[in-house]
Amino acid sequence: MKPVRRDGGFRWDEVPILAYKEEADAFRAVTRQVLFGPEEGLSWELRYFEIQPGGWSTLERHRHPHVVVVLRGSGRVLVGAEIHDVRPFDLVRVPPSTWHQFQAGGAEPLGFLCLVDAERDRPERPTPEDLEAIRRDPAVAGFVRA
Amino acid sequence: MKPVRRDGGFRWDEVPILAYKEEADAFRAVTRQVLFGPEEGLSWELRYFEIQPGGWSTLERHRHPHVVVVLRGSGRVLVGAEIHDVRPFDLVRVPPSTWHQFQAGGAEPLGFLCLVDAERDRPERPTPEDLEAIRRDPAVAGFVRA
Repeated sequence: MKPVRRDGGFRWDEVPILAYKEEADAFRAVTRQVLFGPEEGLSWELRYFEIQPGGWSTLERHRHPHVVVVLRGSGRVLVGAEIHDVRPFDLVRVPPSTWHQFQAGGAEPLGFLCLVDAERDRPERPTPEDLEAIRRDPAVAGFVRA
Repeated sequence: MKPVRRDGGFRWDEVPILAYKEEADAFRAVTRQVLFGPEEGLSWELRYFEIQPGGWSTLERHRHPHVVVVLRGSGRVLVGAEIHDVRPFDLVRVPPSTWHQFQAGGAEPLGFLCLVDAERDRPERPTPEDLEAIRRDPAVAGFVRA
């Protein structure tokens, strides 16, 4: 089993760069690479996401937890009602059913590993009522993109 | 949920540095940090291992697969009959029941994330007969420490 080398930048041989999501959704400048998963007989999936400067992931929540390891760049992340700066090797855990969003900052893309169960529920987008509740906190209101 | 920052070097707040193994075994200068696992309700475990220059992990095999992401340093890894150089962001998959060993090279510790199922079989050490078979390949014989 040959190690799969990244081929200039944060890419790995034989790992395709995918659209962040299969369907249209609210996000900007995000790519996804599935590094390991059910195809290798694993019950979990290791993905690498990259958000270009100015980009952001979808504001969403789901019952399955996320475990994130930042690999490159910097940015901010909303987890529940908290906003945190992130930089390489920070660990972020998104607990079940918690609104979250990643945003890239600085000149370099924000790249992170994200670990999930292979079998998981689909993400839920905020309803207008959810969004109103989320935005009740002025700091969060100033952060979220939806 | 606060991101857990590394606190100078590859350590994270509130994550203890553990002995590589609970029991005496054949290895040198390896530490282990469990970043996420069953305590957070996950069916898998994310660990960070660090091998000091000149150190090496146990030569072993097990039925559960390993998925590894190198984060720092450089070194070499034996997977089955193959020896590969590794450097940051290389991916290594150790298939089930495959002999493997990591060795640090260079001046910096070799640090890597390792993903496993939370419920997994215990590693098996080579018997003298296994070791003889493993060492039949001169390149492998010159590599393995046991």
